[in-house]
Amino acid sequence: MPTIQENCGLILGEIGRAVAAVREEQAEDLVQAIQSAEKVFVVGVGRVLLSLQALVKRLNHLGIPAWHVGAVSEPAITARDLLIVGSGSGESVVPVAIARVAKKHGARIAHIGSNPQSSLAPLTDVFVRVPVQTKLNLPGELASRQLLSSLFEQCLLVLGDAVCLRLAELKGLAAGSDGWGKHANLE
Amino acid sequence: MPTIQENCGLILGEIGRAVAAVREEQAEDLVQAIQSAEKVFVVGVGRVLLSLQALVKRLNHLGIPAWHVGAVSEPAITARDLLIVGSGSGESVVPVAIARVAKKHGARIAHIGSNPQSSLAPLTDVFVRVPVQTKLNLPGELASRQLLSSLFEQCLLVLGDAVCLRLAELKGLAAGSDGWGKHANLE
Amino acid sequence: MPTIQENCGLILGEIGRAVAAVREEQAEDLVQAIQSAEKVFVVGVGRVLLSLQALVKRLNHLGIPAWHVGAVSEPAITARDLLIVGSGSGESVVPVAIARVAKKHGARIAHIGSNPQSSLAPLTDVFVRVPVQTKLNLPGELASRQLLSSLFEQCLLVLGDAVCLRLAELKGLAAGSDGWGKHANLE
Amino acid sequence: MPTIQENCGLILGEIGRAVAAVREEQAEDLVQAIQSAEKVFVVGVGRVLLSLQALVKRLNHLGIPAWHVGAVSEPAITARDLLIVGSGSGESVVPVAIARVAKKHGARIAHIGSNPQSSLAPLTDVFVRVPVQTKLNLPGELASRQLLSSLFEQCLLVLGDAVCLRLAELKGLAAGSDGWGKHANLE
Repeated sequence: MPTIQENCGLILGEIGRAVAAVREEQAEDLVQAIQSAEKVFVVGVGRVLLSLQALVKRLNHLGIPAWHVGAVSEPAITARDLLIVGSGSGESVVPVAIARVAKKHGARIAHIGSNPQSSLAPLTDVFVRVPVQTKLNLPGELASRQLLSSLFEQCLLVLGDAVCLRLAELKGLAAGSDGWGKHANLE
Repeated sequence: MPTIQENCGLILGEIGRAVAAVREEQAEDLVQAIQSAEKVFVVGVGRVLLSLQALVKRLNHLGIPAWHVGAVSEPAITARDLLIVGSGSGESVVPVAIARVAKKHGARIAHIGSNPQSSLAPLTDVFVRVPVQTKLNLPGELASRQLLSSLFEQCLLVLGDAVCLRLAELKGLAAGSDGWGKHANLE
Repeated sequence: MPTIQENCGLILGEIGRAVAAVREEQAEDLVQAIQSAEKVFVVGVGRVLLSLQALVKRLNHLGIPAWHVGAVSEPAITARDLLIVGSGSGESVVPVAIARVAKKHGARIAHIGSNPQSSLAPLTDVFVRVPVQTKLNLPGELASRQLLSSLFEQCLLVLGDAVCLRLAELKGLAAGSDGWGKHANLE
Repeated sequence: MPTIQENCGLILGEIGRAVAAVREEQAEDLVQAIQSAEKVFVVGVGRVLLSLQALVKRLNHLGIPAWHVGAVSEPAITARDLLIVGSGSGESVVPVAIARVAKKHGARIAHIGSNPQSSLAPLTDVFVRVPVQTKLNLPGELASRQLLSSLFEQCLLVLGDAVCLRLAELKGLAAGSDGWGKHANLE
């Protein structure tokens, strides 16, 4: 039985291969979509939502107003806003339903997932492919030895943080700086 | 055994007696504290937090930015903000700790509870007494035949909504109007 | 301009009329559906969800395992479980989608709302009508002078607590008792 | 300015160095503490909490009942349970307060963080050191070029998933298996 250290190595190797397969221009399109949005919303299910909430937190720290769909303080979406959908297969019931509503309000839709031809495709303005294993077994999908869709959730966190580093650089905020003044300070 | 209808009658009778015992000038002080705050934060535990989150939602609809402590999108609190603490006894561990931190940041503190001499009292700028039964059995506390602290949680929801009606009137927003444009519109 | 006390009176009067219009046998059917379920799930949007989460908390205190859809610790639903949907109109996009999935898994569906002929009707095993104003202006709906759907959300909390009082009585738990041992005890 | 791909490389390099510095026996102690607990609770603040909630989700999938402190369905903690605290510095106000309450109830405490001599140390049964940069600049802490405490949050997710892989192996559950039947199935 592998050690916990060996499990960490397995996980990091898988994340490394998966994010290396993300195309730079797709990720850059996401950065630009975030920059040109007035507000950012995210939607996903389960641990995917948790990775997206980590992105929401960091975007707020960077001065970019962001919420997850269902947040107590969630405002109305408008045609000047961006909805980021996290879904490997692009077929999760609730995210697809939410994306349809967002589109009716004229918002832009970014999809991070593995399936370029999902139900989300006709709604999507920006697609970032993270080609990790889904139940669909699409061409180019990377196999994973982890539990369920852990690899996709891990990639979302790492990719989201890489996008935020880029946004910080574009805004001239020094990494490691504490001086942003946006971070929650009560707990 | 009483019917469910009779249980509803019992509950509404208890809420009616408890909110009638709230002093108008204390509730009005809370309205003014909300109006003069730049942002509003709420903190509470369990079902108390749920009633406060209902207040947060309605405040946002009224154009008043509000969050619960711990929200994914929670910003930093400043000296221009208000923290509303919901705690019957005023002794809940986490809310008291949060109130102390908020005070250090110079924020104003409003406490809705039953105990005027709690650990929160020295921190509190506005106190709204809802004299419902706590474990402390203070003078003037109204007994309840409901489960646990249900009565306090119900009073918080009703009082919060009465405060929001007042705020809507002060802002000239018609009750029943759909035209506010602040309401979440994705789910 | 009415006082905050007068607003409380308006709110309690409206809740009183609305819950009095709930039929005892429909509410009793809900009690029985909860009793015969292995697990209870709830789904709703916005402040409706908050009232349902208050119900979830109390059900857990009564020893009835319950979760809201989307909870971090949410388990799988099975044919032995109950999904309670809160939706005045019965047409909210996400709750209807979730109810369809729950039905596929064989779960029973209870709908608390105002519209007996909604998209939920064909899926519904138990319907509890709370005839409060919706955008549909159905016959028998009670008008409200409150903001948005506040009246429905308040009725959900009161009705849920009346149902829990009934469940406590059926289980022989004394109201006011502290001795249940199920209540969260960390915060 | 580095590309997003280069940012991913930076992030994965930092995570790799940090988790490689975790001692196998400390991580194994955490696995055993989880295995011998009746229920698992987690507490943390902000993005740390999100990484811990990802752990909670996976533990539930593995048949280990787990909740975050503050969850709507949170039960009472007892002397047979484990509280996992995530805090780099070990000095976060709320987690320390919660750990003290948990200790009074006789629960075991596991701390994942960087500071072995924090306020949590006297309460802690299991300590897993992830020696990433904190404001304390302790000996052995690894510097990070990322925003705020991103590195700690990322390590928590990866380490948590490595622990869950270990637990799955110990339980004889095949990685990649869909057949667990514990996964939420409504959204």
